[in-house]
Amino acid sequence: MFAPADHAHMSQALQLAEKGLYGTSPNPRVGCVIVRDGRIVGSGWHERAGEPHAEINALVAAGTAAQGATAYVTLEPCSHHGRTPPCAEALIKAGIAKVVTAMTDPNPLVAGRGSALLEQAGIEVQTGLMEAEAKALNIGFVARHTRKRPWVRVKIAASLDGKTALGNGSSQWITSEAARRDGHRFRARSCAIMTGIGTILADDPQLIVRHVETFRQPLRVVVDSRLEIPLDAKALRGEGELVFAAAASEGKITALRDVGAHSIVMPDKNENVDLVKMMQTLADFEINEVMVEAGSKLSGALISAGLVDELVIYFAPCLIGDVARGMLQLPELTDLADKRALTIHDLRMVGPDIRVIARIP
Amino acid sequence: MFAPADHAHMSQALQLAEKGLYGTSPNPRVGCVIVRDGRIVGSGWHERAGEPHAEINALVAAGTAAQGATAYVTLEPCSHHGRTPPCAEALIKAGIAKVVTAMTDPNPLVAGRGSALLEQAGIEVQTGLMEAEAKALNIGFVARHTRKRPWVRVKIAASLDGKTALGNGSSQWITSEAARRDGHRFRARSCAIMTGIGTILADDPQLIVRHVETFRQPLRVVVDSRLEIPLDAKALRGEGELVFAAAASEGKITALRDVGAHSIVMPDKNENVDLVKMMQTLADFEINEVMVEAGSKLSGALISAGLVDELVIYFAPCLIGDVARGMLQLPELTDLADKRALTIHDLRMVGPDIRVIARIP
Repeated sequence: MFAPADHAHMSQALQLAEKGLYGTSPNPRVGCVIVRDGRIVGSGWHERAGEPHAEINALVAAGTAAQGATAYVTLEPCSHHGRTPPCAEALIKAGIAKVVTAMTDPNPLVAGRGSALLEQAGIEVQTGLMEAEAKALNIGFVARHTRKRPWVRVKIAASLDGKTALGNGSSQWITSEAARRDGHRFRARSCAIMTGIGTILADDPQLIVRHVETFRQPLRVVVDSRLEIPLDAKALRGEGELVFAAAASEGKITALRDVGAHSIVMPDKNENVDLVKMMQTLADFEINEVMVEAGSKLSGALISAGLVDELVIYFAPCLIGDVARGMLQLPELTDLADKRALTIHDLRMVGPDIRVIARIP
Repeated sequence: MFAPADHAHMSQALQLAEKGLYGTSPNPRVGCVIVRDGRIVGSGWHERAGEPHAEINALVAAGTAAQGATAYVTLEPCSHHGRTPPCAEALIKAGIAKVVTAMTDPNPLVAGRGSALLEQAGIEVQTGLMEAEAKALNIGFVARHTRKRPWVRVKIAASLDGKTALGNGSSQWITSEAARRDGHRFRARSCAIMTGIGTILADDPQLIVRHVETFRQPLRVVVDSRLEIPLDAKALRGEGELVFAAAASEGKITALRDVGAHSIVMPDKNENVDLVKMMQTLADFEINEVMVEAGSKLSGALISAGLVDELVIYFAPCLIGDVARGMLQLPELTDLADKRALTIHDLRMVGPDIRVIARIP
């Protein structure tokens, strides 16, 4: 169905889409290549929310050369008036003859309507070229729309014997500068960075993106059942950072609001934060990818609740010994058959450290 | 000093040497290629102790073509009458004109005497071609002769969160069949397989090589301070297996001797087995490579005593949680600067598991 040239053009569109990796949130990363007579006459990508979509950028670049051309788009062109007018209409107006897309838009506002609009206008539409790659690029956007939860990635930095901190809490730094920089690339692509109150009280982290060029900082989210967070916590130094609690005084909520943070009280039956509802809420807030950088308690609780999709583990080349702190607090097992299965998605060296990306199926 | 052709011939000699990986103990693995007029006229390797050395096998293959030829040998030819007559003499008698070796023999009985004998007979000798590769192939033989201790390799099988067994001791099986087979390749190249009394009592392992073709089984060594090992332990079902103890009754020692096992009482000042002396003793017994397959206590104690050179860790793609057992009991740290540094020597997938080979510098 697809020729080698189709693959080449879509591959290029995917590479363009990836330029938006750190910027498009909450929108998907999308690239577009316009080809006439085997020659690329225009290309573009979506850079950030509120700015033109990939198709528009490519059409502008192509000008009149778009007439009778084929557009390769990594995601079905949109059909709705969102922050910008629908791309399907623009493609029709420009005289595009054929549209090849990698995947249908999982957004229920589009979900096939974009392709239908194009076909009604007499444009040939082909869908599904390099679909797996396109879905991987927008793994959180797809997760949010198809299952109403973000893609949740837990970062862990450990010694080779699986220890994340000494008994006295000391954990800076087990892994290398290279690993920390790599971690900031995962932060940069996330819509939100999440931690627990334990980490806030112990380390007072900023949880912002450094070491990576970006014009956007992810939302910071703190899980803090008893709303103990200090008002001057560095993680709250932004606009509209979120604190999820299970119980809270009106006074503390107001005080937090005064420093620009929103408290959301969402208890489960054990008077902890209802983690499932919290993730659904984040999806409602258009959060595609969540990066969790927390201690073994919150990370373990998220895994136990079935809310974690991916682990990014940096193993430093060192040993600490069993007395130190482990990676994850999980319910005790009595049968090895009950161990939580993972699949290894990626394995490589990052500087002197080993990086494992594992997924929870 | 060395031409590309020299490298090619030595490389082939190293590959031949490696055929003896599982068999030559306590001898080194050695390969030999004999070249005349740029053509290989004979080659061979050492297969097992008591049988001809690599040079003799290659000379037999070459016959009269050895006259005036160059011999590439991965280790300096021996000069002493051991289990077989000296190879240096055989090379001289065969009329070899030049000998290229990868490394000097670290055995003090040879240590340059082989090369000296050759030179006295008018043979040109060059040393040090692909020396690093040659030393790596005989890492234990070199260790035993240069520092009077074997090369000690600790195997660990863990979940990705660093757990080796459940709280109830259950550990069969965390890692895959592929990882276990890979582990048997490390067993097969070892002169001895070591475990602790805890593992004997919990699992009663055989500690023999399976899954790998070999005519030789490594010596089995048990560290058992109070000589608690049952007489019918599977690990003792051989000839002359060793049990190191810190204290023992004459009766138990005699009973063990009756089932064919040797007890060696070697206490340290804390009435545990003196691990340093134990390793020196194993070197005296011509043990080149030791494979430790023990629990976190013995493995940790060996590391703390500075006796471990290499860790072979298999990480299975699963999570178990912090309540379970860790990898290594080491003294508690209060400062991360004191963490024990490693270098990553090798990283790869083995079946579904990750295998890390790390070295303790």
